[in-house]
Amino acid sequence: MAMTGVLRPGHVQIRVMDLDAAVGFYRDVLGLEEMGRDASGRVYLRAWDERDHHSVILRAADQAGMDFFAFKVADEHSLNKLEADLRDFGIKTERIPAGDLLETGERVRFEIPSGHQIELYAKKTFVGSDLGQKDPKPYSKRFDQGIAPMRMDHALLYGPNVDQVLEIFTKVLGFHLAEFVTLPGTDIKGALWLCCSNKAHDIAFVVHPEPGKLHHVSFYMESIDRVFRAADIMAANDVRVDIGPTRHGITRGGTIYAWDPSGNRFETFSGGNSSYPDLPPIEWSWEGLGEGGGLDVAHRKMHETFLTVVT
Amino acid sequence: MAMTGVLRPGHVQIRVMDLDAAVGFYRDVLGLEEMGRDASGRVYLRAWDERDHHSVILRAADQAGMDFFAFKVADEHSLNKLEADLRDFGIKTERIPAGDLLETGERVRFEIPSGHQIELYAKKTFVGSDLGQKDPKPYSKRFDQGIAPMRMDHALLYGPNVDQVLEIFTKVLGFHLAEFVTLPGTDIKGALWLCCSNKAHDIAFVVHPEPGKLHHVSFYMESIDRVFRAADIMAANDVRVDIGPTRHGITRGGTIYAWDPSGNRFETFSGGNSSYPDLPPIEWSWEGLGEGGGLDVAHRKMHETFLTVVT
Amino acid sequence: MAMTGVLRPGHVQIRVMDLDAAVGFYRDVLGLEEMGRDASGRVYLRAWDERDHHSVILRAADQAGMDFFAFKVADEHSLNKLEADLRDFGIKTERIPAGDLLETGERVRFEIPSGHQIELYAKKTFVGSDLGQKDPKPYSKRFDQGIAPMRMDHALLYGPNVDQVLEIFTKVLGFHLAEFVTLPGTDIKGALWLCCSNKAHDIAFVVHPEPGKLHHVSFYMESIDRVFRAADIMAANDVRVDIGPTRHGITRGGTIYAWDPSGNRFETFSGGNSSYPDLPPIEWSWEGLGEGGGLDVAHRKMHETFLTVVT
Amino acid sequence: MAMTGVLRPGHVQIRVMDLDAAVGFYRDVLGLEEMGRDASGRVYLRAWDERDHHSVILRAADQAGMDFFAFKVADEHSLNKLEADLRDFGIKTERIPAGDLLETGERVRFEIPSGHQIELYAKKTFVGSDLGQKDPKPYSKRFDQGIAPMRMDHALLYGPNVDQVLEIFTKVLGFHLAEFVTLPGTDIKGALWLCCSNKAHDIAFVVHPEPGKLHHVSFYMESIDRVFRAADIMAANDVRVDIGPTRHGITRGGTIYAWDPSGNRFETFSGGNSSYPDLPPIEWSWEGLGEGGGLDVAHRKMHETFLTVVT
Repeated sequence: MAMTGVLRPGHVQIRVMDLDAAVGFYRDVLGLEEMGRDASGRVYLRAWDERDHHSVILRAADQAGMDFFAFKVADEHSLNKLEADLRDFGIKTERIPAGDLLETGERVRFEIPSGHQIELYAKKTFVGSDLGQKDPKPYSKRFDQGIAPMRMDHALLYGPNVDQVLEIFTKVLGFHLAEFVTLPGTDIKGALWLCCSNKAHDIAFVVHPEPGKLHHVSFYMESIDRVFRAADIMAANDVRVDIGPTRHGITRGGTIYAWDPSGNRFETFSGGNSSYPDLPPIEWSWEGLGEGGGLDVAHRKMHETFLTVVT
Repeated sequence: MAMTGVLRPGHVQIRVMDLDAAVGFYRDVLGLEEMGRDASGRVYLRAWDERDHHSVILRAADQAGMDFFAFKVADEHSLNKLEADLRDFGIKTERIPAGDLLETGERVRFEIPSGHQIELYAKKTFVGSDLGQKDPKPYSKRFDQGIAPMRMDHALLYGPNVDQVLEIFTKVLGFHLAEFVTLPGTDIKGALWLCCSNKAHDIAFVVHPEPGKLHHVSFYMESIDRVFRAADIMAANDVRVDIGPTRHGITRGGTIYAWDPSGNRFETFSGGNSSYPDLPPIEWSWEGLGEGGGLDVAHRKMHETFLTVVT
Repeated sequence: MAMTGVLRPGHVQIRVMDLDAAVGFYRDVLGLEEMGRDASGRVYLRAWDERDHHSVILRAADQAGMDFFAFKVADEHSLNKLEADLRDFGIKTERIPAGDLLETGERVRFEIPSGHQIELYAKKTFVGSDLGQKDPKPYSKRFDQGIAPMRMDHALLYGPNVDQVLEIFTKVLGFHLAEFVTLPGTDIKGALWLCCSNKAHDIAFVVHPEPGKLHHVSFYMESIDRVFRAADIMAANDVRVDIGPTRHGITRGGTIYAWDPSGNRFETFSGGNSSYPDLPPIEWSWEGLGEGGGLDVAHRKMHETFLTVVT
Repeated sequence: MAMTGVLRPGHVQIRVMDLDAAVGFYRDVLGLEEMGRDASGRVYLRAWDERDHHSVILRAADQAGMDFFAFKVADEHSLNKLEADLRDFGIKTERIPAGDLLETGERVRFEIPSGHQIELYAKKTFVGSDLGQKDPKPYSKRFDQGIAPMRMDHALLYGPNVDQVLEIFTKVLGFHLAEFVTLPGTDIKGALWLCCSNKAHDIAFVVHPEPGKLHHVSFYMESIDRVFRAADIMAANDVRVDIGPTRHGITRGGTIYAWDPSGNRFETFSGGNSSYPDLPPIEWSWEGLGEGGGLDVAHRKMHETFLTVVT
């Protein structure tokens, strides 16, 4: 197969301080569809072009942040093989039984050296996009309910030991490195954009002293026009914006960074480079990340919040 | 690896009747960069976001059409393995020596039952995109020279035995089927959109009595705005348009079909669904292709040229 | 004053065969807001960025078409002055009392030599745009309910004596001619694009043997992206499309021509040239209108429906 | 006439510190066409959709800023009438002879109480847009040379006595007020957006202690996509950006504020409300300008530079 093993980001569980406020935001402002709630009160949502049951899970908690980030893998065989490979690499894994998450099969969970819980799974109920599977119409009203991204696209995570994370994702999980940033005056890769597809990235990491931190969860928009519309909807709903609209030099994607009601950063993202495993990664210096426009093409500076505000 | 085996469309060799007119079109109107000419007079071009040496090769001939369509594979091992798998499947392959095409390694060529010559190769000189590999700027003047697509994206090929082609692409080459059309009143798949990535498609086939025919080579545009700009540039340069601007229901991509000076159809394409091997393909009926907007969302009809004009 | 006399298109009364179907279309598919119904059963609607009470009036009738097209003038003084000027020019006018149309003051109605009923009025209740008048937010959900144009923008009318119409609009009503088409092999202006503002046009005429015909009423979209979205919504609602998406060479506007359920053509239009009374009009030959892309930049041909299908 | 008296912004003379650097910026980065130089060394430029000879004049000086801002009026009669009206209103005017500016007729110059030199003129050589006047093609390469705005659109000027400026522009020059901002805790209009057309504005003023200051000269872009492209080109050419890309709540236009090499701010602007003299102006409170998104929809805050950095 051409696309094998790890296929795509599958779900993220986000901790929110006030569940009602969070649902109000993710459903009515961001425009995800509520797909269900489980016995423990978690709320499941998905974007209109996603075809599996859910991609975002909200859990009420005392502290904002991310519980875990999961990837769908091609099949049970891949799941078993990847778990074995992880163990061979010295990473402890555990199995979460099917049904722990609604409509989701067994998950393999493991902690990576940056302190994040990562999951792999092979099964989640297929529900189809809002357009259906047979002679689909090209439009659904859901495209325009709230910001209405097409999909949960990726996350940027902050924590230590990014070099070890790079090893695990490229040597064990089969990702390729699309772009990276070196730390000031060194060759050390301090920030990674990693892909299991030909998207601009499927997950990214920035080195950070505190483990297990969430920088942002990103949602994909169809165009720059739609990113601008997102800013309008954020304004109409008093959503606090961090950076943008602008373009990232890294990935060349259009972007807005903003905060959910609990202070978790999210992104509305569009476009972006294509990437392939045979292509050498694009290299950014630390100055390139800031003054070179890697973070913000329009303003070409390091925004302090980029390095300091995480949940 | 997550992306393995066949990675992406690598090059297409197009037959043109008047080489000077063709270069004038592909370089100055479509806006590809001329990368070189070989001893036999073939002209090599690439789009601004492509990182390998070339993607389009023009060959002067008495008759328009496509000589071959090639895919880049991950590495030499994949090349050998895929060749062995093709032979096991009963397909004859031949090796074209490195250097036969400029800056390109050894190629495995084989004919598929639709009558097309397909190639696989593992090596082509990496030249980098127009933006470079270190702290790239976000803009190059080449973005705006002519229609200026980002890349050669895919081709749609016409020929018989599409069912056997489906077998080869999915069972041997590792592609997945993203969308298909059934022939009138049957369950027979008469048109296929096939992927080796999470793009909307990497190659497509429509059943046709005559073998080895080219319907179009497609070039990727960043946005609907850029597709409209392409129409303006076509008009300013008297490029004959077939269909569009419109959206395809199939793939949900923005499109214009038009003809190069030799009568080869090309497409300027944008957006499009994402696809993954675990997702069931979207099914279109024959009416869905025509009246259902599969071909043309705006006009929802079968355009006669779609079925009859090929090179 | 810089903008004086006739200010802008104010309303159009459209005849529809099935009022319920028409309301379903104009309100739910086109996305106008229903503002009221009068004793005679007429339905009043407006677009989200319009600030007066209504711009479209639907009247149930046995035959599709347009009853009248009206312009708002600056004030009562202008209304009286323009009526006097029309009479001096030999045009019969009548006064329709205030209140005949909901929330609308006295109207001056007159027939022009093309057989159309044109109206001027100075008063209509100001209701404000959907965003309000004080510290407005930049977004309202109404932007995305249906096709959701910003405003009724202009109409194209078909009838005889276009030369006399030009005289009246430029010499009496103060419009300027932005663009025109000459009839085949002549200097006779057979099609006119006329402005009372610096828009691409506020009303247009094409010479036609039958008087009083409607070619289309046009609705303004914010961008090409929104014109494409309109095509998607048309497809999802089985709206029959005539031409487009494409660009008109004349006016340089993005366009789709389509038909309402009664067969009245409407347009979703975006962009377009700016025009001013001191600038010489742009001249199009008959070939320029067709093969030159005046009507359809992408296809550069005369569409037969453009000349023959009117209501 | 519907459009009478003052028609549109006609030219602005900008003081630059280093003429070569300025020409390099305005011609090669902003993408205006150089139309000529006069005996005193001034450089004349225009945007691709402008039809008069020039709209921007660069003058080498020791200090950045604006020498004067001029409006084209309908004809000589209007020029004489407006000059007489200005004098009746107590404003001193002077006549600058024809030919003082290349290809430009006699100008009436006067100082307004904000300390700015404003000019009116009736004649400037018509050169036509880049597309020509007969059967124009829809595309010219000039559309894509640099940022390539369609036109010089408006200026925002800073100075005292904004209330008197409002009187002159509305009572003498025939402008209407489209939007305004009241000073904190008062009903005093401290910022004005004024129109002589149905554009979002043709000139704007903000109250400021120092007279005669330039906030920015604005250039019109066709779409949000083109505003984003402008940011990319600014980045590739190290143009310093102040604010944006974002939307202004005031006018609803897309925007980037940035600085030319002399420190004069310019804007790339798109979209924006339509305005008419009969419509009440939109009112913004001081908080609306800042926290309400009047200046910056995405960030909803007062940017300190907006109030302090002028030339």
